Amino acid sequence: MGFDGRQLTTQLDADGTLTLRLAERDWDAPTGRNLLVRMEAAPINPSDLGLLFAAADVENADYGDGRLVAQMPEKVTRSMAARHGKAMPAGNEGAGTVVAAGDDPAAQALMGKRVACVPGAAYGTYATCDASMAFAIGDDVTAEQAASSFVNPMTALGFTETMRADGYTGIVHAAAASNLGQMLVRICLADGIPLVNVVRSADQVKLLKDLGATHVIDMTEDGFIKRLADAVEETGAMLGFDPIGGGTMASDMLTAMEAQATRGAEFSRYGSSEDKKVYIYGALDTGPTKLSRGFGFTWDVSGWLLFPFLQKAGSEVRARMQKRVLSELTTTFASHYSDRITLDQMLQKDAVLTYNARKTGQKFLVLPNG
Amino acid sequence: MGFDGRQLTTQLDADGTLTLRLAERDWDAPTGRNLLVRMEAAPINPSDLGLLFAAADVENADYGDGRLVAQMPEKVTRSMAARHGKAMPAGNEGAGTVVAAGDDPAAQALMGKRVACVPGAAYGTYATCDASMAFAIGDDVTAEQAASSFVNPMTALGFTETMRADGYTGIVHAAAASNLGQMLVRICLADGIPLVNVVRSADQVKLLKDLGATHVIDMTEDGFIKRLADAVEETGAMLGFDPIGGGTMASDMLTAMEAQATRGAEFSRYGSSEDKKVYIYGALDTGPTKLSRGFGFTWDVSGWLLFPFLQKAGSEVRARMQKRVLSELTTTFASHYSDRITLDQMLQKDAVLTYNARKTGQKFLVLPNG
Repeated sequence: MGFDGRQLTTQLDADGTLTLRLAERDWDAPTGRNLLVRMEAAPINPSDLGLLFAAADVENADYGDGRLVAQMPEKVTRSMAARHGKAMPAGNEGAGTVVAAGDDPAAQALMGKRVACVPGAAYGTYATCDASMAFAIGDDVTAEQAASSFVNPMTALGFTETMRADGYTGIVHAAAASNLGQMLVRICLADGIPLVNVVRSADQVKLLKDLGATHVIDMTEDGFIKRLADAVEETGAMLGFDPIGGGTMASDMLTAMEAQATRGAEFSRYGSSEDKKVYIYGALDTGPTKLSRGFGFTWDVSGWLLFPFLQKAGSEVRARMQKRVLSELTTTFASHYSDRITLDQMLQKDAVLTYNARKTGQKFLVLPNG
Repeated sequence: MGFDGRQLTTQLDADGTLTLRLAERDWDAPTGRNLLVRMEAAPINPSDLGLLFAAADVENADYGDGRLVAQMPEKVTRSMAARHGKAMPAGNEGAGTVVAAGDDPAAQALMGKRVACVPGAAYGTYATCDASMAFAIGDDVTAEQAASSFVNPMTALGFTETMRADGYTGIVHAAAASNLGQMLVRICLADGIPLVNVVRSADQVKLLKDLGATHVIDMTEDGFIKRLADAVEETGAMLGFDPIGGGTMASDMLTAMEAQATRGAEFSRYGSSEDKKVYIYGALDTGPTKLSRGFGFTWDVSGWLLFPFLQKAGSEVRARMQKRVLSELTTTFASHYSDRITLDQMLQKDAVLTYNARKTGQKFLVLPNG
């Protein structure tokens, strides 16, 4: 017995041609611990865009019927040699209904249920997913409400778990007006964690203040680093999370933290001995990270990624995090979508140019069976 | 009872004027755990130059009698506000004879002894030093042989201790032909630690090969990163130490490590999940560190500094390290000096331009009573 439908794939060839295609396919009945989920809603997260388009030139792409062909810069093409020639499905997460399940009791337990899931192939009529990456949602929760219940919520909670594991007591967050950033504001308010939010406009300041945020800093205004240092002093936040990656954000955070740490202290050419750290967890700017190193020798810049973090955190922490997400899905972890599109619309120029711009406030939800 | 002599100091004023001065002074008899050491030999290490000159324009300085006045760039001057107006002694380490000691038994035990020490003020006729930062040397060891027995030896040993503590099994070392780099080659050979040496010339390749080094890579030759990745594959060295700091060395190391980690692996847009880390422990290039981030999200770049490391390592590890340094002072930890100068000569233009150039193969020893 097979299931017929359509699936979006992205393929990068060695010559730099990137092809997104929406094609017919069928799914076999799942075996073992696998589920087959009829997808009802799937968000487009920045991490999805990294796989779908990376740095391809979507502005000058060739948009055809169920197909999009764009050119990838040569350097990026070379750095992705392992994906050359492979049509890869996309879409980390979503929500839907389990229409078939393998023999394993863990899979059978979810048969017929409405679930939030992380199949890594959510942009399709159906998606196959391991039972451990899906969890049942209540009747009072819609697919749309449950669609983003993994990546952003677990990432935001993961920041606070990481903070505790690393021995810090406050967080500086860049690009903090994002959906993820708003969740982090609500978590930190509820948990009493000092949070410094760095944003890029007065509107974003208002947005976060309205949520109850105490420290919101507009980086486009004068004296950014001085104001950031003041906020670090007030909060003791010596741990940063930066989704921008390129440019000087990580360096600016460390500079502000060091300025705070050395206020009134004796001069040391090696800088303060106070620990300070920034995790880079995204690449909104794909250019190089530039560290001025005007912040001594006691510092750390590191990559942060959800799945390796979850693996290291262990099953007990994961279960605790997931339980909280489920119980606060429509409050703390509520996502807001600016646009809802079908699989077909995912390949239309207007939509692509908008959702691939990764602008704060614009978040797309895909309705694969819409 | 006082001790008369001369001491070199360095002072940075708020207007950017840097003044090095060799002036008469006297030292009181030491109290408590303090020693007074008559200094016989003190090396000029890169870390000393950071305090003495930082980024001052020594080429166009005013060289006078026992005095040197240079201009510091404005940005650097501002970043060092805590030292403005203070005449600071310099010289991390050296060797000499204890001519007076405080009442504490730890100090009295070293009275009259020849010692290697870390007074932080070695460029003077005398220096005061805590007894815990000095250790007696054997009669068969000269002051010159003992002068560099702390900073470089403990740093090189510290790298291997750090490697073990962080769970790595091999090291990539940049600017590896330095005195420190040569010690690291000998330590790694003796301890069976895989070491990849990155150098800048064919001469330096020969120098390290003659010491017995297996992997020596000339970064000025074509295909540097490819060759580095090959060496990483052969050695499993996923931990780097970089004294350059500015530019792309740390990034290049991570790129090579990632290239090795993903050879033959499935594509993941997040990169490999293999841990890779680079410590920046110097600033031979004071420009910004540029990280291309073409190496996934599992990476770490961090500052490394000897004294915080020693503090974290604990007294047992420190004692073990120091014991080894003393017993291998004329073999594993032997330093080679290209020039020997007096305190007066430290302020002469020819000498300053040479020793402040931080060139591999040029290492100065100061004879404060010479």
